[in-house]
Amino acid sequence: MTVPRLFPWPPVWRLRLFMGWRMNGHKPALVGTAGPPTLWARKVEKACGAGGFGVFQRRDFRVTPASAQEVMLTRDRYAVQRLPFAEVSEQDLAFFERVLPGRVSTDPHELQAVNVDWLKMVRGCSKVLLKPKTTSEVSQILRYCNQRNLAVNPQGGNTGMVGGSVPVFDEIVLSTALMNQVLSFNTVSGILVCQAGCVLEQLSQYVEERDFIMPLDLGAKGSCHIGGNVATNAGGLRLLRYGSLRGTVLGLEVVLADGLVLDCLTSLRKDNTGYDLKQLFIGSEGTLGIITAVSILCPQKPKAVNVAFLGCPGFSEVLQTFSTCKGMLGEILSAFEFMDDKCMQLVESHLRLSSPVRENPFYVLIETSGSDAGHDEEKLNNFLERVMDSGLVTDGTVATDNTKIKMLWALRERITEALSCDGYVYKYDISLPVEKLYDLVLDIRSRLGQSAKSVVGYGHLGDGNLHLNVTAASYSAALLAAIEPYVYEWTARHRGSVSAEHGLGFKKKDFISYSKPPAAVLLMRRLKGMLDPKGILNPYKTLPAGSP
Amino acid sequence: MTVPRLFPWPPVWRLRLFMGWRMNGHKPALVGTAGPPTLWARKVEKACGAGGFGVFQRRDFRVTPASAQEVMLTRDRYAVQRLPFAEVSEQDLAFFERVLPGRVSTDPHELQAVNVDWLKMVRGCSKVLLKPKTTSEVSQILRYCNQRNLAVNPQGGNTGMVGGSVPVFDEIVLSTALMNQVLSFNTVSGILVCQAGCVLEQLSQYVEERDFIMPLDLGAKGSCHIGGNVATNAGGLRLLRYGSLRGTVLGLEVVLADGLVLDCLTSLRKDNTGYDLKQLFIGSEGTLGIITAVSILCPQKPKAVNVAFLGCPGFSEVLQTFSTCKGMLGEILSAFEFMDDKCMQLVESHLRLSSPVRENPFYVLIETSGSDAGHDEEKLNNFLERVMDSGLVTDGTVATDNTKIKMLWALRERITEALSCDGYVYKYDISLPVEKLYDLVLDIRSRLGQSAKSVVGYGHLGDGNLHLNVTAASYSAALLAAIEPYVYEWTARHRGSVSAEHGLGFKKKDFISYSKPPAAVLLMRRLKGMLDPKGILNPYKTLPAGSP
Repeated sequence: MTVPRLFPWPPVWRLRLFMGWRMNGHKPALVGTAGPPTLWARKVEKACGAGGFGVFQRRDFRVTPASAQEVMLTRDRYAVQRLPFAEVSEQDLAFFERVLPGRVSTDPHELQAVNVDWLKMVRGCSKVLLKPKTTSEVSQILRYCNQRNLAVNPQGGNTGMVGGSVPVFDEIVLSTALMNQVLSFNTVSGILVCQAGCVLEQLSQYVEERDFIMPLDLGAKGSCHIGGNVATNAGGLRLLRYGSLRGTVLGLEVVLADGLVLDCLTSLRKDNTGYDLKQLFIGSEGTLGIITAVSILCPQKPKAVNVAFLGCPGFSEVLQTFSTCKGMLGEILSAFEFMDDKCMQLVESHLRLSSPVRENPFYVLIETSGSDAGHDEEKLNNFLERVMDSGLVTDGTVATDNTKIKMLWALRERITEALSCDGYVYKYDISLPVEKLYDLVLDIRSRLGQSAKSVVGYGHLGDGNLHLNVTAASYSAALLAAIEPYVYEWTARHRGSVSAEHGLGFKKKDFISYSKPPAAVLLMRRLKGMLDPKGILNPYKTLPAGSP
Repeated sequence: MTVPRLFPWPPVWRLRLFMGWRMNGHKPALVGTAGPPTLWARKVEKACGAGGFGVFQRRDFRVTPASAQEVMLTRDRYAVQRLPFAEVSEQDLAFFERVLPGRVSTDPHELQAVNVDWLKMVRGCSKVLLKPKTTSEVSQILRYCNQRNLAVNPQGGNTGMVGGSVPVFDEIVLSTALMNQVLSFNTVSGILVCQAGCVLEQLSQYVEERDFIMPLDLGAKGSCHIGGNVATNAGGLRLLRYGSLRGTVLGLEVVLADGLVLDCLTSLRKDNTGYDLKQLFIGSEGTLGIITAVSILCPQKPKAVNVAFLGCPGFSEVLQTFSTCKGMLGEILSAFEFMDDKCMQLVESHLRLSSPVRENPFYVLIETSGSDAGHDEEKLNNFLERVMDSGLVTDGTVATDNTKIKMLWALRERITEALSCDGYVYKYDISLPVEKLYDLVLDIRSRLGQSAKSVVGYGHLGDGNLHLNVTAASYSAALLAAIEPYVYEWTARHRGSVSAEHGLGFKKKDFISYSKPPAAVLLMRRLKGMLDPKGILNPYKTLPAGSP
């Protein structure tokens, strides 16, 4: 992001003077105790101590053996039966070593890291890690595994929320970590073609140096792989403006379960020649094929970015602020996030961040991105004047320089981290009609009463996406039973989605029927059966157990 | 569209004064002889006489019996074998009549209209037209037809370009014309849910009254059905700004070949619960299922719209104008169309439209849509000053009021109509890397020399989408052989698409391999085999003939 023109411009000054408006630069904002706050995903630090859920880790597979050992094996925690796949033999290892010389690991230390998810909720017991560099190598591996009936767990940055990226039993882990080459970038069209293992943040830096941005951004960007982003149809912070990956991904290269390479790696905005096969693999969580390369359309880098962080007196005012914002900011609106006061308390108490806007029931973070700093500031100013005058917003701050923008974003992006410090976290990622979004939080809070430590709501309001989180001192089957299936039934009643952007993976697969009718689940099973008849690709994920 | 602030503003006046800039209002612009020009799709008139290709028709099925009779039967023109489907019996008709009382037609007059496409290139010989009103009726019909092995041709507005919407032999025509109800519209989110047979223009009017717009717009809007738009993944004039239907369509209801109703009609921006089945049906041209209802996200109606129509001295300058435009207009750019001088000559000579900007090798039409008229005009003005100063643009006009905007759009939108008046038209809808776009036109023009009457290029430059058209006095196998497969080979060499937005339908299905590898075509066949094992849905379309 470039640094736009600096404040103040008079109307905000007026607001500040008469209505308690505060601006960065006039008041010390957002101070983290361990130096200047950075984006959450970039942090590799001990953010909270032994009283919390555990050591907070960067979302990658460099988990320490000690902490990994603490995580209960998935096969023990969940009543799941191993399917009759073959077990890896010495002959198999010899074959892998011939295909991937020096890139086959059976090192227990390295395997512990890839067996456990970053949330430390699920853990497998794979004994082999494969690190291909090319599509041809992936193809040879899958052809062999399919013949041998060996199960394979594709793994990108291992940053998923639903246990989709780690083995359940002893599946072979096929990591895309070494498939990290940019294949081409067109500086006129902004079309990037790269291997699946490129880290999102590195791609962002690469295209930003060329005056473009990635069409998606998310907290885990420092670790997540673009192939994993596509395989899970990641949403994130820019969806409101640039749409979903279903529109911005132009082409994919995928290796099917039998080793066949499907080359749909075109770089065209329009292509109506037959069925759009790449869509099958977007969001299929590695269960239908392994994505090896991605062609993606990058928007031009906006010349000006502003972030407003506002306090609202109620959720009704949050919704009205959103409506006003859509009308007045229109095409420059690039994010509209919300969080409740409980989130703010957790961020302040566990991470010791200090917010320049406090003591409001709700907060919204509004980002604008545009091509003319002056115009954007004027639009934002008119909008702020309107929402302040009408009482929809009672307090707020605006940032235009990159450091302060990141400080404000940290308040929103680091909520997940703060929650992890609060205890055991029950996480729900729900889509609902926007007017119902917070009713669910109020209902669950009232239902759970004192049995929960915190019940918080935040998320991508602009996309109708609520992150509902419940924390407790430790895992409790009774508390879980009080939340589930109640939360799913509530969502289904309002025709919502029980997984807006996190996917189903291992942990949510049995709840698919709350959002999809039986005919749809049946058709999904038939697709799986057609593309992966032996079921070797990421087994125990996405679809509920049961006969096809 | 609202009517934005009127010109002039001073800087444009300066441009006009010193650089030959012309403005609507100062000079009579764009005069059609038969009254004020209207959008092409709204015209139902005899635009060109007997010397041309034929009577130009509104794109709907009210084709006169006389003209329909003139079109050669597809089975005679093309070497295509009827597949062993059953023939419709009296018992079948009795069943249909029970399900659709009064809505089963065997009237030869009505059937002639639905048997021929609007381009009058292909003609089938169906003897039955079914007009269901509900999803349940569609389900009953398909279940029955599947059991009886009766082939079914789904038909929307019959506005397709590739013969996908009319029968090849005697397939039953299932029209969505009576499935034209809006089911819901959310005035906060802009999410529209409607039946598949709603006409696009009527939906546009409906949502515009509520301060939203449809995310797609195309010349055939007066006739085409939203279900057909989705089934063909229609592109059109707004794709540059609002993205493809793969992003804006939120949900679909589809009836499968065996009558099963697949309800994926959600209204959520985000839903990652399992595979995104609706994507299978977007762009599958009615060969995998019949879309009965659509949920679609409508953007807010822009407060200001401007159109600039500019003359450029060469295609290199067109490309540089596009790059400059993307940088300077950024988020308000909503269309970037181009046409060559030959297109302008045809529009002027056949339709007697007069352009305010003439005698340039190339023309571009730039549309901006934004939330602040003043800001948009300033951005546009700065852009115009830049491209005029640098010589990228030599002449131009700008319109801000709705009537003049439509007049300028007519110059671009009515090219298809003008071509139809020029003779027999060989139509190609190609995606290419934008820098190669016009090389193909030059190459074909040089290759064909005097054997073609006109070789023209125009299209959605912003999407890399070229409409290459060749006209001749009449159909000629020799001329066709000079164009095909050369044009497809050329496209394949540059990794383009042989059908950017028109689909494959009947006429382009055999060319799929120029844009898709064998593994992809094989997988498409397997999908078709899985979803429609008897092949009753829109047979002879999309996939090339051959064993599955």
